[in-house]
Amino acid sequence: MEIKKINITHKFSSFDDYWSPKIVGELNNQLVKLAKFKGEFVMHHHENEDELFYVIDGELYIELNNKTLYLQAGEFVVIPKGVSHKPYAPEEVHVLLFEPAATLNTGNVNNSLTVSDPNTI
Amino acid sequence: MEIKKINITHKFSSFDDYWSPKIVGELNNQLVKLAKFKGEFVMHHHENEDELFYVIDGELYIELNNKTLYLQAGEFVVIPKGVSHKPYAPEEVHVLLFEPAATLNTGNVNNSLTVSDPNTI
Repeated sequence: MEIKKINITHKFSSFDDYWSPKIVGELNNQLVKLAKFKGEFVMHHHENEDELFYVIDGELYIELNNKTLYLQAGEFVVIPKGVSHKPYAPEEVHVLLFEPAATLNTGNVNNSLTVSDPNTI
Repeated sequence: MEIKKINITHKFSSFDDYWSPKIVGELNNQLVKLAKFKGEFVMHHHENEDELFYVIDGELYIELNNKTLYLQAGEFVVIPKGVSHKPYAPEEVHVLLFEPAATLNTGNVNNSLTVSDPNTI
């Protein structure tokens, strides 16, 4: 397989839909995904996967059971497996996700926001 | 364990040494590390680990056997296991690394650049 660099800005400019992570890299059975969020997601948790949210551009809130995290560009957080979380963003935010390949975006919840087979871009 | 966000700029301002990755996050037995590079590293490979280099600030070259990659801020590349690579940077570059916890910075090479027990910052 050819080894090619990925330009994150270019990748973000190639899609517009919210809450639909796109695969941009794979390593060690983990995926690097990019997503645009706007509005409210669903409270959920992942049974077996820790999940990293890294804000590339904009502002992201992640509601937990006992507090709400606030992240700006250049900040990341790891949500451990089993921890309920609900991302929301008053304005569009660009997020890089790092998580095991098996991770479903809505975790233990299955609803209209669930993306069971994310695209690679 | 308390869930806390990490500000990458703040973390980079907390150390000055080159070629000595610092641990800033852990998830799914993978580590997120930050490193400052300047000058030439050693050509090496990782037997069992794919490695991601994401440039936060500056310019990074990665020499492979058949070509040289050039990355600027906002670009990343995955170097698959077994692939020889030699990072170099004419000027200081800030890099975020994603890799399995078992990854040694100099891979199959053991020399003065080897950091066998990276610090968490």
